[in-house]
Amino acid sequence: MRNIVATLLIAFLATKAFAQKQTPPAPAQVAQEIREYRMDNEERIMRELSEFLAIPNIASDTSNIQKNAAHLVEMLEARGVEAHLLPITGRGPVVYGKLISPEAKRTVIFYAHYDGQPVDPTAWTDGKPFEPVLRDAAIEAGGKRIPFPPNSAQRRAVYNDNWRIYARSSSDDKSPIVALLAAIDALRTKKIPLAVNLKVIFEGEEEAGSSNLQRTLELHKNLLGADLLITADGPVHQSGRPLVFFGNRGDIGIGITVFGPVRALHSGHYGNWAPNPAMELSRLLASMKDADGRVLIDGYYDDVTPLGDAEKKALAELPINDADLERELGIAKPEGGGKKLVELIMQPSLNIRGLRSAYVGEQAQNIVPDRAEASLDARLVRGEDPQQKFDQIALFIRKQGFYVIDREPTMEERRTYPRIAKVINEGGYRASRTPMDLPVSKKVVEVVEGAAGPAVKMPTLGGTAPMYIFEELGLPVIGVPIVNADNHQHSSDENLQLGHFWRGMEIYGAILADLNW
Amino acid sequence: MRNIVATLLIAFLATKAFAQKQTPPAPAQVAQEIREYRMDNEERIMRELSEFLAIPNIASDTSNIQKNAAHLVEMLEARGVEAHLLPITGRGPVVYGKLISPEAKRTVIFYAHYDGQPVDPTAWTDGKPFEPVLRDAAIEAGGKRIPFPPNSAQRRAVYNDNWRIYARSSSDDKSPIVALLAAIDALRTKKIPLAVNLKVIFEGEEEAGSSNLQRTLELHKNLLGADLLITADGPVHQSGRPLVFFGNRGDIGIGITVFGPVRALHSGHYGNWAPNPAMELSRLLASMKDADGRVLIDGYYDDVTPLGDAEKKALAELPINDADLERELGIAKPEGGGKKLVELIMQPSLNIRGLRSAYVGEQAQNIVPDRAEASLDARLVRGEDPQQKFDQIALFIRKQGFYVIDREPTMEERRTYPRIAKVINEGGYRASRTPMDLPVSKKVVEVVEGAAGPAVKMPTLGGTAPMYIFEELGLPVIGVPIVNADNHQHSSDENLQLGHFWRGMEIYGAILADLNW
Repeated sequence: MRNIVATLLIAFLATKAFAQKQTPPAPAQVAQEIREYRMDNEERIMRELSEFLAIPNIASDTSNIQKNAAHLVEMLEARGVEAHLLPITGRGPVVYGKLISPEAKRTVIFYAHYDGQPVDPTAWTDGKPFEPVLRDAAIEAGGKRIPFPPNSAQRRAVYNDNWRIYARSSSDDKSPIVALLAAIDALRTKKIPLAVNLKVIFEGEEEAGSSNLQRTLELHKNLLGADLLITADGPVHQSGRPLVFFGNRGDIGIGITVFGPVRALHSGHYGNWAPNPAMELSRLLASMKDADGRVLIDGYYDDVTPLGDAEKKALAELPINDADLERELGIAKPEGGGKKLVELIMQPSLNIRGLRSAYVGEQAQNIVPDRAEASLDARLVRGEDPQQKFDQIALFIRKQGFYVIDREPTMEERRTYPRIAKVINEGGYRASRTPMDLPVSKKVVEVVEGAAGPAVKMPTLGGTAPMYIFEELGLPVIGVPIVNADNHQHSSDENLQLGHFWRGMEIYGAILADLNW
Repeated sequence: MRNIVATLLIAFLATKAFAQKQTPPAPAQVAQEIREYRMDNEERIMRELSEFLAIPNIASDTSNIQKNAAHLVEMLEARGVEAHLLPITGRGPVVYGKLISPEAKRTVIFYAHYDGQPVDPTAWTDGKPFEPVLRDAAIEAGGKRIPFPPNSAQRRAVYNDNWRIYARSSSDDKSPIVALLAAIDALRTKKIPLAVNLKVIFEGEEEAGSSNLQRTLELHKNLLGADLLITADGPVHQSGRPLVFFGNRGDIGIGITVFGPVRALHSGHYGNWAPNPAMELSRLLASMKDADGRVLIDGYYDDVTPLGDAEKKALAELPINDADLERELGIAKPEGGGKKLVELIMQPSLNIRGLRSAYVGEQAQNIVPDRAEASLDARLVRGEDPQQKFDQIALFIRKQGFYVIDREPTMEERRTYPRIAKVINEGGYRASRTPMDLPVSKKVVEVVEGAAGPAVKMPTLGGTAPMYIFEELGLPVIGVPIVNADNHQHSSDENLQLGHFWRGMEIYGAILADLNW
């Protein structure tokens, strides 16, 4: 089968010479024209997305992550976007692109990432996270596998809005890239000019902590002249309404290993004499939060910068759908002592993201394990420093009676300290927040709402993206995500609901055609 | 290469016709003669052991476990032991054998098991638990892989006492079987008659809970007429001295799963709102024991039958090597509030044998997990009923605020109960104990000590074996283990130190030649 990118390039060359209209229609009109284009081209757009998803994209898989980058360059160049790779040794490069519009006075950088979270294929229903599967509904709703419908001579393929594509990064974060590029195709076909110059930054190690992004962008600062950064990362509001957000929480990862005897011991001969590291780890974790989920670590909430008036007002206006979420997720009583989800994500969090010690279930062995591990993540809000947060946590562990080190203990240390914890700072970065009352902030909201109806406006998203880097470059940073909230982001069976994807094309098209402030 | 069992059979047929001496020498003399035989035949004995270890022996691996049984029948018949398989549907059969001695008035059943604990090959240094590896010392002591030395025309192979064979069941529990059969060969070669009729029962699902042993033995009760059962399961004392023990703890396995949201959720968007099952499991486990390791579950120690005078005396005489163990195992402070290991194993235990929730380390995902699992085992002492023990634990979990079920929760249950735990009774059985002041008890000690020097005598071993079944058949049950205490039993890198194995041959030979009471 012919590669879809080559097909797109031919289409681009054929339309390039056409003159463009000089005054853009209003966002609602742009959305309408993009919809018409899309309905004529669903098979082609889906094919481009599927081909992109089929390239494995774990940041540490150097060979494949670079294949993704090369493929992105082809995708950009097929639209006449000037593309460059900003290399990072041993990692996927930053993919940079530029599309100048003669009519534009403003420049917008569009940020997304093309790497995905690590996968455990055995936990995926279809077992192959990099072989995109189409289903006629969500798996939880009994969705069945269906073939990707092809175009035929008689009839265009039609994709139902409720269908979902299952694959790693189908939502986080490859589909926004494809939606943006398809929106460019649509505007060009419909002869609607771009109101802004567009630059793109597609990162290849966001899910691995973006450790090289800042340095790489510093090196190529000359490419980054702009007036606004739009990030595509994250899902829309759980209500299904479009979302515009003005901040991200920061995040640090913490690995904790508690040590028992030097080797796993027979639980009959040594149990209840040899200290059990799984029990000690349980005690340590249990001591970190109270029954309502409030973190008991000294000073954990002290550095939080209070919200401004515009942010407080936005919070008060947010739709509250906690009850719906509780119903959907099977939750009888959330943490937080009665606080709403939107209030809780304005605070720092502490979350156990995994536990491991020896074996459970059928694989269980009658042993006292030699170690027990926990992986934690702490989300940070504006005002909090990642290193200080880690130090607070490490100090707390020390106060619980642990000897804290950052490596395996020596035999002498094992013999000296009854409780030993290896505590690893797995890195992370701080939060970011753009004021909601800037002219550009108001204008982005206006265009999104013009294209797609009333949006939810959030001062800060609960999730994390390295937006502080762009903040430090002096750019306002505004998030315009497009994917469904129930997308299983970061977990197995990640998916994209097509209706959201189509609407995302319309939103991005309207921004390109109408953003002016 | 010719199968070693076939070679043995030919050797047996050649020696069968020889008349046997009429009066057995004393245990020390028997041990000496067996040693001479062994030094002439080390290569052959090692080969029989290695071939046996090379047959994978997880109880649930039906095809392989039956291969083990068929191989055992060949091994028995090669010695002229009449052998039968007592079948168990879908499992390895009980291998039964009988060797009648014209001089004998007593009959001894020798029990061992030929299945092994589940394996995780990635956790083994050599990666292949069923390809026996010889090392010149323990891995912890820097032991290097060495080839199995062959016999040559010029020189017999010599195996050093400090060498170790690494393989699943190299200690637990295949090597005692090979030691017993090699002892029979030695006695026959040295023309020493058996003082007892020997029966053997080799079980194929001990590590899977012996769920069919009792029923199978009931069905074949007519085969089991005897005066004593000797079990070979377990290691010698940690001091390296021979061990004779008169009881086993019982054991039950308990699986606990705590539930969070119906699916794993993004920890940024939902963390500290969605209840975290890993945190709830940690709290539950931490509530089960105090800082000294004492179990806080109501009535946990109430049913324990106190020790008798002979047992108390034996306990007082036991060598205390806790300090050595602490040094070897890298323990600064054991659990138990100052009690000695030998005292603690006279009590019921509660041990976390494994934990699992989502992922840790490099595989960690930024999620709130949908579930967290723990696997526990509780060792029981005389007087305790397995079902009652499970009920105590389940009741405690209920009192901690959990809705306790034995299956996945329904959506309605998830919406109704803030805390839900699936608690599975994985089965198990009660403890057993034979009085230490019976004539047969004293005689076994005398023969073992005559052959191998001062033994450690323990009222109860910490480990578990289904000896209650034989107790219920009216037999005294005495344990005479032979393998090294640091054998990594039940864990990865299980191994057998050859010096212990050779001494075990001598002990078993002396019992066969001299046990009379």
